[in-house]
Amino acid sequence: MTRVTPDPFDQSASPDTVAIRWLGHAVQLLDQRRLPQEEHWLTIEGAAGVSQAIRDMAVRGAPAIGISAAYGVALAARGADERDWRTEVDVAIAVLAESRPTAVNLFWALQRMESVLRQCRSREDAVARLAEEAIAIHREDLAANLAMADLALAAMALDKPCAVLTHCNTGALATGGYGTALGVVRRLHEQRLLKRVYADETRPWLQGARLTAWELVKDGIPVILNADGAAGAILAQGDVKWVIVGADRITANGDVANKIGTYGLAVLARHHKVKFMVVAPSSTVDMTLERGSDIPIEERDGREIRQVGGIAIAPEKVGVFNPVFDVTPANLIDLIVTERGVVHNPEVTGMHKLLG
Amino acid sequence: MTRVTPDPFDQSASPDTVAIRWLGHAVQLLDQRRLPQEEHWLTIEGAAGVSQAIRDMAVRGAPAIGISAAYGVALAARGADERDWRTEVDVAIAVLAESRPTAVNLFWALQRMESVLRQCRSREDAVARLAEEAIAIHREDLAANLAMADLALAAMALDKPCAVLTHCNTGALATGGYGTALGVVRRLHEQRLLKRVYADETRPWLQGARLTAWELVKDGIPVILNADGAAGAILAQGDVKWVIVGADRITANGDVANKIGTYGLAVLARHHKVKFMVVAPSSTVDMTLERGSDIPIEERDGREIRQVGGIAIAPEKVGVFNPVFDVTPANLIDLIVTERGVVHNPEVTGMHKLLG
Repeated sequence: MTRVTPDPFDQSASPDTVAIRWLGHAVQLLDQRRLPQEEHWLTIEGAAGVSQAIRDMAVRGAPAIGISAAYGVALAARGADERDWRTEVDVAIAVLAESRPTAVNLFWALQRMESVLRQCRSREDAVARLAEEAIAIHREDLAANLAMADLALAAMALDKPCAVLTHCNTGALATGGYGTALGVVRRLHEQRLLKRVYADETRPWLQGARLTAWELVKDGIPVILNADGAAGAILAQGDVKWVIVGADRITANGDVANKIGTYGLAVLARHHKVKFMVVAPSSTVDMTLERGSDIPIEERDGREIRQVGGIAIAPEKVGVFNPVFDVTPANLIDLIVTERGVVHNPEVTGMHKLLG
Repeated sequence: MTRVTPDPFDQSASPDTVAIRWLGHAVQLLDQRRLPQEEHWLTIEGAAGVSQAIRDMAVRGAPAIGISAAYGVALAARGADERDWRTEVDVAIAVLAESRPTAVNLFWALQRMESVLRQCRSREDAVARLAEEAIAIHREDLAANLAMADLALAAMALDKPCAVLTHCNTGALATGGYGTALGVVRRLHEQRLLKRVYADETRPWLQGARLTAWELVKDGIPVILNADGAAGAILAQGDVKWVIVGADRITANGDVANKIGTYGLAVLARHHKVKFMVVAPSSTVDMTLERGSDIPIEERDGREIRQVGGIAIAPEKVGVFNPVFDVTPANLIDLIVTERGVVHNPEVTGMHKLLG
């Protein structure tokens, strides 16, 4: 089977391999709210539009949010006034930073853009260099995904195909292309080491049903969709050897914030002696936070639980608890994979050694 | 606070306390597929209609299925031919037995009806006695729920209010009235011992969102709705002291088949040292089955996962694993409550002592 190397700057690339396109004067985002019904691209020419797209979850997934925000900064320079350009880009960075609170890749990407901005001497200079930097962030993310897939497969050291289970969407749609956890799934499939992947549908946003299933069906990778509550029954069957997930932020001790439901999966994995792997680029690691309880966890509107696709599924007056992420403590994680290397049984020392 | 004692034969009873009504010539079922949008009653005059309502999940919940099936047998006698009545009722029993495979209350109720049928000498006799028996099954179920609530509260021995978490719907809608696990929640509220109850929305059928939230909001009981995947984060907060669920079948060793997701909750509860209670009438206990792996687990159509309310949320071609129930092994259960008494740390001896 040939190894897939998607090119984010090939405009003919299939949207299941690249969902962010840079046009020079605009960024195009595949609107993830409309999948799987419709492949609709948003063309966005300013930072405010990018911020709105992140907030509304037209683009989601920690790495994709970071890349989109970087392009947003580049667009801010393009659209800025010749005299106030530096202030305008600074404001754009501040607005973009407010879009979502949990994924650290957003802040990481904005910091990179900001430090380039500091070196720019003119608006013209900023337009060119900020676009270059955003493209670099995008290319590096894709390269990181390909590297992580290799590192993960080496660490798994499988001698025969196995089934795996994943949560949310961590594929091409969530990243610069290919995917983090789903990149590992892709590589397993390429290497004929994947029996099948179970995809949690991942309420409330159903990223598993809408996005992961869509990507994998398109690529002909054997996927079985299940309600989140079925994960226990699936792990009890004994076929699944690895649970593989992404991350929105990883702290210095190896705790991981990821999509709500991840923590429960980690507990289930440990109970069944199934290995639990987190795959995320090093930009997801926040060594300034000591532990998971320091991570701000976004809570979203109760309507996301009371409704599905605009249809009421619960009484309007019922109270709702709708955290977007939960924290999985390092002691439930067997392996953290980044493009810089892997950490087995993560704790402070191992994390610092690789990422400090 | 006054103790609630709903009367299933009071036609003015609120549907959040009783969802099955016997009219003599027909049974009325509150159509649970239309809740919470609409309180629509189905009036059914024959066994085939009752069987269809069970199959289509217009009525669901193990005890409610048993009660409805019993009324279905009574209706079969009413509608039967004067000469062939015995055969016709036998056929009706066979058809009803095919409606759903997992809940044992269905087979238990049909057996009770069948043994009464054996004693009947005429169609007229059967019409009267089968109706009486169905009503008795209904009344006994309600009485069992009230008794279980008392037994559960005594076993919990709370000295102050606590939060609890429940799954699926086990309330008035799932039973002859009041509820099993949700009956315990009701009683906790009546006794001012309930801080709040977290209700898993319970995909794919969303019984928690559509039914449990509806019942509890109607009754003014403090309920917080959450995605199934949020249960781990909720238990990690430390506020919840008990997870309380119902059952569709309990085997001789104390293993419990219940709504998909129950097993995962039991693993989470044990991980967090939260107590795990199963509340079910003794008609749910099947002492003929040795262990949970002997229970037939119903799998339903993949469309239940690929769609919500008729709207596609996943690619049409994606494979689906959609088991309705899972099995929680006895060793993860702290307490089984039946109307005959409670079993702590269930295993074969304790189960036989109480229920053998």
